[in-house]
Amino acid sequence: MSADPLVPETRVLAIASHVVYGYVGNKMATLVMQSLGCDVAALNTVHFSNHTGYRQFKGTRATAEEITALYEGLCQSHLTDFDVMLSGYAPSAAAVEAVGAIGQDLQRKAESKPGSFFWVLDPVMGDQGRLYVNDDVVPAYKKTIHHADLILPNQFEAEVLSGIKITSLATLASAITVIHATYNVPHVIITSVDLCKFANPPSTDSAPPPRSLTIIGSTTRSDGSPRLFRVDVPALDCFFSGTGDMFAALTVARLREAVFAAGPDLRTTRSWVSPDEVAPTELPLALATGKVLASMHSVLEKTMEARDAELKELQTTNGEDEGSAGLSEEERSKLAHLRRTKAAEVRLVRNVRYLREPTIEFHPQEWRAEDLP
Amino acid sequence: MSADPLVPETRVLAIASHVVYGYVGNKMATLVMQSLGCDVAALNTVHFSNHTGYRQFKGTRATAEEITALYEGLCQSHLTDFDVMLSGYAPSAAAVEAVGAIGQDLQRKAESKPGSFFWVLDPVMGDQGRLYVNDDVVPAYKKTIHHADLILPNQFEAEVLSGIKITSLATLASAITVIHATYNVPHVIITSVDLCKFANPPSTDSAPPPRSLTIIGSTTRSDGSPRLFRVDVPALDCFFSGTGDMFAALTVARLREAVFAAGPDLRTTRSWVSPDEVAPTELPLALATGKVLASMHSVLEKTMEARDAELKELQTTNGEDEGSAGLSEEERSKLAHLRRTKAAEVRLVRNVRYLREPTIEFHPQEWRAEDLP
Repeated sequence: MSADPLVPETRVLAIASHVVYGYVGNKMATLVMQSLGCDVAALNTVHFSNHTGYRQFKGTRATAEEITALYEGLCQSHLTDFDVMLSGYAPSAAAVEAVGAIGQDLQRKAESKPGSFFWVLDPVMGDQGRLYVNDDVVPAYKKTIHHADLILPNQFEAEVLSGIKITSLATLASAITVIHATYNVPHVIITSVDLCKFANPPSTDSAPPPRSLTIIGSTTRSDGSPRLFRVDVPALDCFFSGTGDMFAALTVARLREAVFAAGPDLRTTRSWVSPDEVAPTELPLALATGKVLASMHSVLEKTMEARDAELKELQTTNGEDEGSAGLSEEERSKLAHLRRTKAAEVRLVRNVRYLREPTIEFHPQEWRAEDLP
Repeated sequence: MSADPLVPETRVLAIASHVVYGYVGNKMATLVMQSLGCDVAALNTVHFSNHTGYRQFKGTRATAEEITALYEGLCQSHLTDFDVMLSGYAPSAAAVEAVGAIGQDLQRKAESKPGSFFWVLDPVMGDQGRLYVNDDVVPAYKKTIHHADLILPNQFEAEVLSGIKITSLATLASAITVIHATYNVPHVIITSVDLCKFANPPSTDSAPPPRSLTIIGSTTRSDGSPRLFRVDVPALDCFFSGTGDMFAALTVARLREAVFAAGPDLRTTRSWVSPDEVAPTELPLALATGKVLASMHSVLEKTMEARDAELKELQTTNGEDEGSAGLSEEERSKLAHLRRTKAAEVRLVRNVRYLREPTIEFHPQEWRAEDLP
């Protein structure tokens, strides 16, 4: 039997949502990290039947006190020897603060051993120009992010955190510079930037140009300036819930792998910040991002195929959806939405081999202010 | 890349406990089934920081109403297309009944397609002669088990359910016969029987005989009589929490695999009961049990090695446990217990290859009433 393609042993505390059915939040992140060999402690911030993309769900939210109590349970039995914390969705400003206190406590415990604890924070606040949390969650995140080692905002969240409207590569670079400076956070990845929107004018040909998605990241230099890299990947023409959680979980595993591969010095350096002479494209963060996106692309391609097959199977020969006879227009539309949402659940369990051994490659590229349009 | 060694596609609803740290209940069962390719919906009945073997924990229990609401959430969005339900620990009699109602509802939904839904029930009540649930949980299980397809009691739970004190192979056979007859449950596995206790008189030699553990199972014939098989495995000299959950989860995956391998007729037969001419050792349940125990033996052996290494590392050169200086006798003993318990957490993530491809083999043997001592 060949050796498992696992990352170095990593103990992760993952704090995010739990859903009974489907793959988002900790349900996604736990399996992704476990598949790569990480030992995951999963502290769940909500207990829902399914993700909110279905537009209906049942279940309960953990209070800030319940989150804190679970962590105290770990402390009292000496179960806090974590190498990494990954924090995602928290259901209130108080919950964000409770999670922040956990991260800071783990940092204090690791203080005498630089690099022995690393905090990846996904500031889940909204997407596509819209907040989907209470307004008071934003200042709670702004206070917490100061303590994180790596944050993973999407384009909208990066705008909220930087106060800069991202309308070009130049404003994107500014937003990252501001985030590094304002929050003193050494690593940033902006997980989804649709450059087509502002970099390419609409095509006048009948066939639109193939769309691509750009992921931008940076690790600061010792003077605080950003070391920017980008990875362009072909965009898939569909939306899947949980991809942000998948990105974050893969990044935990692949970043730790890349930091270990960089030699013993880096992993005993505070926040794993590479020396200034390391080029942007050679940063562990950049190498990890390339590998993360390769895995994601394959899993999401397989998901798209499976989704299309599932939806096709639901169509009866007369073109009418099975089971929708006798329903009102409104009920029919709701049923169709539920079916589309279910069919678009990420197909993870049968495709973990793409997490372990990506079959394609995406390479980070450097970009500098003078290259910007 | 070779094909993944996965079982046939299987959608499982797993209802059991969740712990942040470590591997018991759904935390164990979910990863085990996912590793073999099952899509697992995880409905958590408690949310604890760690398992109760530590003798302290924090967290909350789900009420029967919360369990029911989560299931209603699945129903309203048409997310109930499960092939198998695995139900484990429930924190009260009302919770056991709520889980029972879910199993029965899924059976009703599958009524027109025999064999399309199968319920594995682990009647978690106690061990080693002691109940660790409230007294009213016992009658709740006795009412529920009538509806299950396979139950997985340990020796003590089999005694509680059958009313027969198991003191010999003959009384064990009687207990299984009574369980089949009383609860009309077609498949039973008694997951741990220490035959040494009553089959072998104490050795007078200085070296005790190598201990073995016997797992006994049966699938009924059409006349209701048991078809008994046994699998003997070398006993490991230690106790690990979560092994019952591991056994149950592996059994779900391996039984479904064996039923599919038996051809298309069996999997469209109610409760997957093999025709009478199938010998006990050729039953899918027997074949699955052999494979399950092979995986478990390897993972637990690896766990024992890792546990011993972890405990050794904690000893300082002067023979004193690190970190226990200045503690009272009581505190020292508590710390030692916590460390031993943590060190004995099952090492699952780095050993999933033994789940997927067992490297050893255990074969079921037939045994008949006339062979009994």
